[in-house]
Amino acid sequence: MDPQEYFESQIPPSNLSEVSERVDSFVNNHFKKRKIVLVTSGGTTVPLENQTVRFLDNFSAGTRGATSAEFFLDAGYAVIFLHRQFSLQPYSRHYSHSKNCFLDYMKINEKGEVHVEQKWNLNMKEVLVKYQNAKKLGTLIMIDFVTVKDYLFTLRSVTKILSKLKKDAMLYLAAAVSDFFVPDKKMVEHKIQSDDGPLDLRLDKVPKILSPLVKEWAPNSFVVSFKLETDESILVKKSKKSLKTYGHHIVIGNILTTRKKQVIFVYPEEDKPILEVTLNEEELKNGTEIESKIIPKLVEGHNMFRIE
Amino acid sequence: MDPQEYFESQIPPSNLSEVSERVDSFVNNHFKKRKIVLVTSGGTTVPLENQTVRFLDNFSAGTRGATSAEFFLDAGYAVIFLHRQFSLQPYSRHYSHSKNCFLDYMKINEKGEVHVEQKWNLNMKEVLVKYQNAKKLGTLIMIDFVTVKDYLFTLRSVTKILSKLKKDAMLYLAAAVSDFFVPDKKMVEHKIQSDDGPLDLRLDKVPKILSPLVKEWAPNSFVVSFKLETDESILVKKSKKSLKTYGHHIVIGNILTTRKKQVIFVYPEEDKPILEVTLNEEELKNGTEIESKIIPKLVEGHNMFRIE
Repeated sequence: MDPQEYFESQIPPSNLSEVSERVDSFVNNHFKKRKIVLVTSGGTTVPLENQTVRFLDNFSAGTRGATSAEFFLDAGYAVIFLHRQFSLQPYSRHYSHSKNCFLDYMKINEKGEVHVEQKWNLNMKEVLVKYQNAKKLGTLIMIDFVTVKDYLFTLRSVTKILSKLKKDAMLYLAAAVSDFFVPDKKMVEHKIQSDDGPLDLRLDKVPKILSPLVKEWAPNSFVVSFKLETDESILVKKSKKSLKTYGHHIVIGNILTTRKKQVIFVYPEEDKPILEVTLNEEELKNGTEIESKIIPKLVEGHNMFRIE
Repeated sequence: MDPQEYFESQIPPSNLSEVSERVDSFVNNHFKKRKIVLVTSGGTTVPLENQTVRFLDNFSAGTRGATSAEFFLDAGYAVIFLHRQFSLQPYSRHYSHSKNCFLDYMKINEKGEVHVEQKWNLNMKEVLVKYQNAKKLGTLIMIDFVTVKDYLFTLRSVTKILSKLKKDAMLYLAAAVSDFFVPDKKMVEHKIQSDDGPLDLRLDKVPKILSPLVKEWAPNSFVVSFKLETDESILVKKSKKSLKTYGHHIVIGNILTTRKKQVIFVYPEEDKPILEVTLNEEELKNGTEIESKIIPKLVEGHNMFRIE
């Protein structure tokens, strides 16, 4: 199925026009004042039933996207954070998971006031100041999705809106998007019953939307896509092939098990060497996040691209 | 595949003995001092690859389980909270999702101390006091799972440990457990490539483990299972059938779209009428949680059961 056929045959998400209005107003606020990056984050679901009890999902807590969004804000970008509902979010991610529950950092003083324990105060203050700053400046807008369909329709709308920024927009496509889906017309209404033996599923291929995204929706934007593999031997080849097929600017390649300490930047130019971004032992030990190295390099690349 | 064949043919999760030791010590601490409830919560995944990028999942944020755990603690139970990794947890659930981000409740005062804003202080204090109390008493133990295999092996170990409490243990099985799985020996190693057209999947049926759970693992425990459907016309019939097949004590039936305001208690006794637990308009408006009505009724049922 090609992208056009996909969008014509699927029922759009019901909140699409509301989301588009919010993004449009956000983009107008920052237009010509600062660069804007669209960060996509988290996995997309593929529902197997209309009233969804079961779905196919892609592994992603949203760490890459949420962390990257913070460093883009640090670098002066306005950020459209298009993320899977309930995946990690910029700033709150520091405290939202089981191993870092914020309640463990809180105390009640003699006046009955709830406050952060002395020894954690500095860390939380640092996070909170940045969070409040992004809120005050209005530089962070949160848009959520659940299904791969929500994601694809919203991505199309948002990138079309961003196209007016021309080269001042970056698209940083870190979401883990399903390659397969169940078309609306093949979907069953109710929960699949388990009484009838094994479950046989046939899923159609999701159209490759990077093609219209680069050529039609946002033809002047700086486009960075991700490639996640588990087999290192195919990573570079698949990244090169993606750049050749779609004509965008960078593929960031990573391997599932090492993605938090090593990524590669692959470029379309034949003669431009692959760039390895890694964390050393020291950096791993002191909690440096690899996105603190990835984002400045992309900002540099984006600035070069803007003056080309 | 029957349960015994399942457990013999699948590779157990690597942390199983460590988890069992933790639960064993927890159970020994509370044995003969208080009742213990096992609360299972959240959805289980079915990985499609050994190095997992894609998986099948069951819809569940873990609200039912996390909320119920709080009311069980209120009622004096010690709680084993066996939950999907990163699903909602007791207490922190009040602040962990996008619409209730705890950072929005925090301020920095003139001394640079991070504290809760005055108007939210009472609410957060109430949650924090209960959380700290459970920590102090050691009445809440958190065990997490990801896959349906983790869940099944852990459930078997934990219920066997709980069997020493005899009638003082309740099993409250609120997790959304997959009915299908991919056996270890059929699993592919690497990420499934999307170049080869549509994806065909065949998933085997997960064995019905309620049967050995009730008959062998914890034969004296008070067992409450859940039935979630989307089609109201089959709910009672399926709940009755489940009670007849497995011989446990209550099925709580609920419909996907109304599960937060209405559930039914279905009993094995032919002459015992179905109990409807509902929230009225008033209660819905003031934020009453339906678990505040479910748990006291179960505690009552458990106490009756203990003196039978």
